[in-house]
Amino acid sequence: MRAVDIIAKKRDGLVLSAEEIDFFIQGFCQGAIPDYQVAAWLMAILLLDMDRQETIDLTMAIVRSGEQLDLRDINDFVVDKHSTGGVGDKTTLVVAPLVAAAGAYVGKISGRGLGFTGGTLDKLEAIPGFRSDLSPAEFRAQLGSIGIVVTGQSADLAPADGKLYALRDVTATVQSPPLIASSIMSKKIAAGASGVVLDVKVGRGAFMETEQEAVDLAELMVDIGRGIGLRVRAVISDMNQPLGCAVGNSLELKEAMDTLLGQGPPDFRQHCLIMASQMLLMTGQVSNEAEAIERMERLVDNGKALVKFRAWISAQGGNVAYLDDPQRLPTASCIEEIAAPRSGYVAALDAREVGMASMLLGGGRATKREDIDHAVGVVLHRKIGDYVEEGQPLLTIHASNCAKVAGARQRLLASYRWSDEPVKPPLLIHRIVS
Amino acid sequence: MRAVDIIAKKRDGLVLSAEEIDFFIQGFCQGAIPDYQVAAWLMAILLLDMDRQETIDLTMAIVRSGEQLDLRDINDFVVDKHSTGGVGDKTTLVVAPLVAAAGAYVGKISGRGLGFTGGTLDKLEAIPGFRSDLSPAEFRAQLGSIGIVVTGQSADLAPADGKLYALRDVTATVQSPPLIASSIMSKKIAAGASGVVLDVKVGRGAFMETEQEAVDLAELMVDIGRGIGLRVRAVISDMNQPLGCAVGNSLELKEAMDTLLGQGPPDFRQHCLIMASQMLLMTGQVSNEAEAIERMERLVDNGKALVKFRAWISAQGGNVAYLDDPQRLPTASCIEEIAAPRSGYVAALDAREVGMASMLLGGGRATKREDIDHAVGVVLHRKIGDYVEEGQPLLTIHASNCAKVAGARQRLLASYRWSDEPVKPPLLIHRIVS
Repeated sequence: MRAVDIIAKKRDGLVLSAEEIDFFIQGFCQGAIPDYQVAAWLMAILLLDMDRQETIDLTMAIVRSGEQLDLRDINDFVVDKHSTGGVGDKTTLVVAPLVAAAGAYVGKISGRGLGFTGGTLDKLEAIPGFRSDLSPAEFRAQLGSIGIVVTGQSADLAPADGKLYALRDVTATVQSPPLIASSIMSKKIAAGASGVVLDVKVGRGAFMETEQEAVDLAELMVDIGRGIGLRVRAVISDMNQPLGCAVGNSLELKEAMDTLLGQGPPDFRQHCLIMASQMLLMTGQVSNEAEAIERMERLVDNGKALVKFRAWISAQGGNVAYLDDPQRLPTASCIEEIAAPRSGYVAALDAREVGMASMLLGGGRATKREDIDHAVGVVLHRKIGDYVEEGQPLLTIHASNCAKVAGARQRLLASYRWSDEPVKPPLLIHRIVS
Repeated sequence: MRAVDIIAKKRDGLVLSAEEIDFFIQGFCQGAIPDYQVAAWLMAILLLDMDRQETIDLTMAIVRSGEQLDLRDINDFVVDKHSTGGVGDKTTLVVAPLVAAAGAYVGKISGRGLGFTGGTLDKLEAIPGFRSDLSPAEFRAQLGSIGIVVTGQSADLAPADGKLYALRDVTATVQSPPLIASSIMSKKIAAGASGVVLDVKVGRGAFMETEQEAVDLAELMVDIGRGIGLRVRAVISDMNQPLGCAVGNSLELKEAMDTLLGQGPPDFRQHCLIMASQMLLMTGQVSNEAEAIERMERLVDNGKALVKFRAWISAQGGNVAYLDDPQRLPTASCIEEIAAPRSGYVAALDAREVGMASMLLGGGRATKREDIDHAVGVVLHRKIGDYVEEGQPLLTIHASNCAKVAGARQRLLASYRWSDEPVKPPLLIHRIVS
């Protein structure tokens, strides 16, 4: 088999065999197939697509590039969630301990933010001492002992995925359904998950801007899940405006803790309850969504969700003293409240622009290697559908120095659209695909 | 400007600007844009095409990657030819001295063979001492003194083309009309040509198997020529069976000399006269094809074509004693005549298979870095339309040792198809595009 022939076959629109796909992925991982051949192959896949079986074969080839955890001795159903990425999306921080508190096993490989989107690990690392570099053995041990673990991608699990993603990022080959689906699913399979609930974001602050694209991707992943023995459900959720009110790592961590205490913004709380209930339903511990949500609400009210959150952070080396006194978490040195420039109803609030503003304040990365500032970000006091009087607080900017406030203010005010008539808030959950 | 944005623009089917194309080509040449980004870009071009203006801009960007010869002080019309590659195609060895003997200036950058096709430089290097690594200054000097020069691609002229071709070869992105056209045309422009006659081969032994593909490419190149101030004509010629009878470097060199002496296979002689007459017509030295052909025939008959050939070889360091006594040229140690397996008319003779047989004997290269054996090859005694009696000579194999004959014989005999009824020889020239 020669790499150039496999590229030519895909270029000609033909269907690749499992053996050809495996040859290509293992050859790439072992350094036998150079980046430039893989780049040409990825572009051919993006432009000519892969069918269901090819996508399944690609997913499993990526899994085979590394170790695959077998967690069946810990529990026969380990559940995971995955978000396609958005702005203000601190969902994992709430749903992982919530579902674990309900008795399910939650084992998750998570990522970092890039561009206008945030990443779960960045938010967790706002807590001094928190480790996101667990080995597969540590992952297993913690999952067994407390039923919850969230760590970064290990070099031992699906290493081809990391290499492929780095190449896709610089060759304009990110936006391909079979490449996106195989990337997500391979990590889940390698980490030993039995089921996964996907949070497929759609709107201005998501990678997919139309509901149809999001549904197509969700259906592809549910379908591939069937082919590889992974139960998959997908929640198609709105990402036109940020989720919740806080955008920025430390700020989002605090909002997640508020939510675990039964407070927090209503939209974010509702989103978390739906995601968590889908995860719990999948494990078979409840028989319907109403029962699941009721159970979750009880775990919030009786404080058990927050207890699980503390146990989780502590197990991964995080200093829980910072959780008990959140004012000790990284705090920006210049905090400035911005007033509404007019009276009216908020008609639109561009999530992408808010994410960009937070990134430019230092809360995100323009390129992968940048450091981030956990303290900075934005807190929104009014969202779509809310009414505000001119001069009343609209949002608060948290910056590392006051010189950075002006640019952020301009961008953030420009991200609002106004109406004199009442505006309906956007539908939070578009649909559930399973 | 960022390379990834230019890749994305082409991936999305948009038209690139001259600035974007130039940024990409110069960045690649200077090492600022890595191979993997170029590979993805090339695949996007292959699958989504480039329009006429983009192809012109790409051609000129490749020219700008290096030096551009200005030959106007030597002659205001330097003519070149280019073949898209075939089997037994020793045309340059005949037409370059023929056209130069007629008083035109022929300056040519030539290539090497790969796979089943042969290359002019390999054939010339069968002559001890022949140099194909002339500098641009040597190229100019020789063209000025004797009106003919043929050398290999210099690192100073269109260096982006060599780098692009090496990458296309291993990423399955060779077969793209804008990439083929810009590769050919950029070298002609860089080498200072005012006009070029393209020999676009079509058939089993060519890169284009259908006449429509060949005509499309020819029209594209004629059209681009107009856009960049290069006169272009294209001869669409048959390459279903090998051109002439000899396939293999030393063997083809001898056949070319025979043809310059007025002997040689009739199909090859006719092909050379048409190519040469198109070149001469382009220079304006004759007013019609009949006059051109008559002039060429006279130059063969009076020996002036061969005199020009000797002067050319000598100027490039070749030992002309080997031309005067061709038996001194590299000769195979095992020469075996193969008899016809049956009586009948030759109905087909697969050029690609004959080319492969010669390559496997050592006369060509499977990969670019291989050395070749100038002595080996095949001489065909019967071609399409010829009648032969069973047991009479069909072809002769020239091998470096007799152990290699059996495999070649099997492949060569399998490349013949037979008929009991008379068969018309294929049309040699399909059409001329100008």
